[in-house]
Amino acid sequence: MNQSRLNRIIENMKKDGIDQLIISAPNSLYYLLDEMFHPGERMLVLYVNKNGDHALIVNALFPNAQALDTKVIFYNDTEDPITYLKDLLIEGNFGTDKEWAAHFLVRLMKQLPNLEIEIGSVSVDAARMQKDADEIAKMKHASSVNDETMKKVVELLKEKKFSEKELQKQIPGLYELNDTFEVSFTPSVCYGENAAVPHHNPGQAMPLENQAILIDMGGRTNGYCSDMTRSFFYGEPTEEYKNVYDLVLQANLAGIKAVKPGLKLKDVDNASRKVIADAGYGEFFTHRTGHGIGIEVHEFPDVSSVCDMVLEEGMTFTIEPGIYLEGKFGVRIEDVVLVTKDGCEVLNNYPKALQLL
Amino acid sequence: MNQSRLNRIIENMKKDGIDQLIISAPNSLYYLLDEMFHPGERMLVLYVNKNGDHALIVNALFPNAQALDTKVIFYNDTEDPITYLKDLLIEGNFGTDKEWAAHFLVRLMKQLPNLEIEIGSVSVDAARMQKDADEIAKMKHASSVNDETMKKVVELLKEKKFSEKELQKQIPGLYELNDTFEVSFTPSVCYGENAAVPHHNPGQAMPLENQAILIDMGGRTNGYCSDMTRSFFYGEPTEEYKNVYDLVLQANLAGIKAVKPGLKLKDVDNASRKVIADAGYGEFFTHRTGHGIGIEVHEFPDVSSVCDMVLEEGMTFTIEPGIYLEGKFGVRIEDVVLVTKDGCEVLNNYPKALQLL
Repeated sequence: MNQSRLNRIIENMKKDGIDQLIISAPNSLYYLLDEMFHPGERMLVLYVNKNGDHALIVNALFPNAQALDTKVIFYNDTEDPITYLKDLLIEGNFGTDKEWAAHFLVRLMKQLPNLEIEIGSVSVDAARMQKDADEIAKMKHASSVNDETMKKVVELLKEKKFSEKELQKQIPGLYELNDTFEVSFTPSVCYGENAAVPHHNPGQAMPLENQAILIDMGGRTNGYCSDMTRSFFYGEPTEEYKNVYDLVLQANLAGIKAVKPGLKLKDVDNASRKVIADAGYGEFFTHRTGHGIGIEVHEFPDVSSVCDMVLEEGMTFTIEPGIYLEGKFGVRIEDVVLVTKDGCEVLNNYPKALQLL
Repeated sequence: MNQSRLNRIIENMKKDGIDQLIISAPNSLYYLLDEMFHPGERMLVLYVNKNGDHALIVNALFPNAQALDTKVIFYNDTEDPITYLKDLLIEGNFGTDKEWAAHFLVRLMKQLPNLEIEIGSVSVDAARMQKDADEIAKMKHASSVNDETMKKVVELLKEKKFSEKELQKQIPGLYELNDTFEVSFTPSVCYGENAAVPHHNPGQAMPLENQAILIDMGGRTNGYCSDMTRSFFYGEPTEEYKNVYDLVLQANLAGIKAVKPGLKLKDVDNASRKVIADAGYGEFFTHRTGHGIGIEVHEFPDVSSVCDMVLEEGMTFTIEPGIYLEGKFGVRIEDVVLVTKDGCEVLNNYPKALQLL
């Protein structure tokens, strides 16, 4: 059990008015226990109350839980694990994990019809949002692996033409060369006008002379995620492409420059968006500027125009403005940043100047 | 909307005493709508009541829902979709999808504190359990693709030695040659004593002379899953291996022979298990005999010694006895079967006689 992380959750619970909660999301359990469980349909929860008492309730099919430095309650397939949870509860309200499967909650409510139920994950998400020293080191390493892997992808593209789908399938193997055996999401590879579709599904298209290329990829290294987008051009870019590329790069840099503890996440979105809007391309930047990242590639909170959350040291999120011109091309440039005492550190170092392939 | 499938769910609701329910599991929505949604954290539910009224509540980011032949209610990111659901409710209890994220249910309960909540998915699972003609055709095709792909795997193994992990990574590409672009689960490849570990994680091991080989694999073809295990031997098998192989094969055949409408699922488990137990290997058959299969590779119900459910025409499940001798080898032989009027049809046709590689 990572006691200092647990303590931060308990502090948050007091602020949020949650007397006790359960954590069932495997990624939040990993945050505290440094162990990734895949319980499938079987109940696996860490119970925590405001007094600091806690226990893990886990099926006997996961004997590795025994080795964890925390109190463990085992149940087997013929028992109802809800009764063990019920026995732990203290007076007060109960915070459920936001993603707990509803049938567990219904079974708990049947046994305790008067239990006051709240959503408890806010206290956990707020703790996970601010990375500690160990997490920061892992985030930095994950992004440096992503830089190295992007280099290999570009080398590969220079050597040989691949269809979008073929290249997409090569990428996990390139991470493995950097000791990362998992991508943090299915890599996105888009050629030409497909790059104008933010969630394009890579297909059989081959790169053509004088076409845009967009690659969005990340790995999960030692449990922490990277995420980076770079846009390239195959052949000789038009003036329009060069202008749009420069605009997106300026928007990326403006977002990075806007990060300062005390300001808000929406200020980052606004700074990035303003560059694009002022140049008349506002309607073609069709998504939020970024998202939190850590154990999961998309974490709380959003970097969006409506996010009033205050920037604090230790937060990590993406800054990824884009311009998508339907039927023509798209450009997105994405980095992961870490909020520091007086600004931010960009964790990706792969070059951002326009690269022709 | 597949009206006949919806009608079966509504019949089940009447039997189960569920007045209205929501379906949120993407696979159950696929069953009814023939469309696979990946809503992520956004609410997407099909509301159904006992009178047959139904509507899909979906975020405007999924405009493809408009084309579905069903009533659709769109909401956007600034709205609370729970209020739309609340407006649809009739008098009576409310069945939640067993896997609905708890925070949706909590928000509904806050708005309707007196709503009686039940788990509604039983009515859906029971409908999905019995496949209709269209589903049966797809299940047969999926298993024939699996047979063809297993052939290719064995050819590959004969040509060249691969580590467990390398072979595991080749398998999805072999499915693609058979027009199946998705595996139904990560293929399992085990050499030697690794085959004695039912959930072994393929590693760098290479096949050695005189070793057992176990391959468990399946694809998802046109939305329906296959799942087959075959055990092979590389070199010259010992008498012990040959005996165990034959025993597992007899157990597989005994399970198949035991399938008859009117008998119970536990009768199938018992028939298979008895062959192995009678030969003194009972303690080495460490898992249930099989599981339901369809849109998902593991579906309701289990083929286990405690499953009292009655066999009915149209059910599809696996029969997969195994014997695992720690430190030596393991053998498992798995087929998918379809319950017919007076027995069952085995959907896999890849040979089961011991094959030496």
